[in-house]
Amino acid sequence: MNERELIDRIRHLLPEDAPGLIRAIGDDCAVISKTDDLVWLLTMDTLMESVHFDLSWHSPFELGRKAVTVNVSDISAMGGTPVFSLLSLGLPTDFDGKWAAQLSRGIADACQEYGCLLIGGDTVCSPGGVALSLTVIGEMKRDLVLYRNRAKPGDTVWVSGPLGLAGAGLDLCKTGTAFDAPAMQPLLKAHRDPRARLRMGAFLAETGLVHAMMDLSDGLATDLAHLCVQSGVGARVFAGKLPGYEVLEAPAQLLGRQPLSWMISSGEDYELLFTTSGAVTDEFVTQLAEHGFSAYPVGTLTKGKGVLLVQEKSDDGTVFEQDISYQGYGHFEKR
Amino acid sequence: MNERELIDRIRHLLPEDAPGLIRAIGDDCAVISKTDDLVWLLTMDTLMESVHFDLSWHSPFELGRKAVTVNVSDISAMGGTPVFSLLSLGLPTDFDGKWAAQLSRGIADACQEYGCLLIGGDTVCSPGGVALSLTVIGEMKRDLVLYRNRAKPGDTVWVSGPLGLAGAGLDLCKTGTAFDAPAMQPLLKAHRDPRARLRMGAFLAETGLVHAMMDLSDGLATDLAHLCVQSGVGARVFAGKLPGYEVLEAPAQLLGRQPLSWMISSGEDYELLFTTSGAVTDEFVTQLAEHGFSAYPVGTLTKGKGVLLVQEKSDDGTVFEQDISYQGYGHFEKR
Repeated sequence: MNERELIDRIRHLLPEDAPGLIRAIGDDCAVISKTDDLVWLLTMDTLMESVHFDLSWHSPFELGRKAVTVNVSDISAMGGTPVFSLLSLGLPTDFDGKWAAQLSRGIADACQEYGCLLIGGDTVCSPGGVALSLTVIGEMKRDLVLYRNRAKPGDTVWVSGPLGLAGAGLDLCKTGTAFDAPAMQPLLKAHRDPRARLRMGAFLAETGLVHAMMDLSDGLATDLAHLCVQSGVGARVFAGKLPGYEVLEAPAQLLGRQPLSWMISSGEDYELLFTTSGAVTDEFVTQLAEHGFSAYPVGTLTKGKGVLLVQEKSDDGTVFEQDISYQGYGHFEKR
Repeated sequence: MNERELIDRIRHLLPEDAPGLIRAIGDDCAVISKTDDLVWLLTMDTLMESVHFDLSWHSPFELGRKAVTVNVSDISAMGGTPVFSLLSLGLPTDFDGKWAAQLSRGIADACQEYGCLLIGGDTVCSPGGVALSLTVIGEMKRDLVLYRNRAKPGDTVWVSGPLGLAGAGLDLCKTGTAFDAPAMQPLLKAHRDPRARLRMGAFLAETGLVHAMMDLSDGLATDLAHLCVQSGVGARVFAGKLPGYEVLEAPAQLLGRQPLSWMISSGEDYELLFTTSGAVTDEFVTQLAEHGFSAYPVGTLTKGKGVLLVQEKSDDGTVFEQDISYQGYGHFEKR
């Protein structure tokens, strides 16, 4: 049984409808009714030591920040604004007081940055290592919520920034390579202390131009496959249009890797992935740029199935396609 | 640094007031405004393998149920009704599909029993063992919420049922004693598959007679100390009035323990602990009994400090007192 099968099994045990419930399992957040006009967005994500982070390269301050960021990113993925959070903090019996204090400062720092108030939770002993579960509660206008399942054939697929940086940063950490090289700092930071695209998510929701949106947490290949399955569409992604290639060339050479594999398969970029009508063009990019945001068109949606990666060979211009659906990060898959 | 010091440190990093926030860290649930008349109650509790449960004596079905129950108990502790829940499920890489399916059934079963709909969450790899974090969201009338900090000197202290059963059950499990003895089943069940006092909590809130309430999760000595500190009162608890002694005599003999130590120091009873005016008497107990609920007066609140246990020696009637404040379960204390 893999992660998707497990989630499907849990999903099938649960009722689909209930008073006040707008959207349950299957999107970045659950959506429940607050008032006639407003909804609450609810998300819960856990970071586990030795799975999501390693204390030998994550400072406690960065770790505290990241635990908040990955949850806030789910709120931004619907276009919402975080309001409250709860924390369940698992620490080994012999935890260091100073370390825990810096972790707390990181949590408080990110909560303040994103405008999200920590209002509860619990602390537990965790013999297997540090574990940080957060629940973040966001708010937004009911009719602006951006779901995963409303993309349409013909849509343009966009991403909000360079892909694969966090994946390259993780591999640099794992191999202990080039920790102090200035050129590698953006990659290391992308893994250790990412940013949620909160203002951009809310802005995109307000434009009314976006059909479907989610955040990139498990890699483009997996996340876009989720969006496609839920919307009943297929996708063609153009390798040459994926942003981030230049930044990845140096670490790829250092580590003997291909930039493209990081860009499509590695997780934790926390960029936004969204679709608009194919008619939306340069004017949209200009409008975003005026507000300090970037967006890159990377593909189109089709009436087919699966996520196809389209590559053009540089020597003779031959085009070839391969299905990359779900080739991203999977928690229970051996890699 | 112990658990209370850690929570205090986190608390001091956070603002106290915010729009829509009624009660943050420090009670069984955080309380936020839903409408003019209604509030949401939010709680988050984690169960960790080898800390809160042991797979050699917890079936996956029971474990799933318990993870829901301990959270729902926090909602009942304020007098509320659970509505929604989120689950973060940590499983080892090589988890067994059938086992996970039974765990899911247990979660779904308890959610259905308590009327609480699972609407989201995540699944993560957890190399250190199974970890279950739940967030439960409850609802209730704003002016009926029962907090911990409104108890008054002169109040009677009540508990909703026998104490120490879960603690005795845990010790039976740990020592592998009398697993099949019919007389021990209520104790084993109290530890493995407790019940949240949901209907009773809501009923108590409706009576308007309760000043302060919480659930008993860390043992009377610790939980009553929390209530006393937050209300600025002291307590005198009468050992002879604590319910549960008879049931604990047999396991105490088997294991060479004292029933009283389980009753005041062991956690996970999930009974309600509440206070009313000292003028509330037998009529109240009769009224509760008519609705199928029990309540036992176990002590009184004073203008002093600390939780004093009052014992009368059976041979000569000598009365002696000892301060038992915070002598219950502590996650990060060596015992």
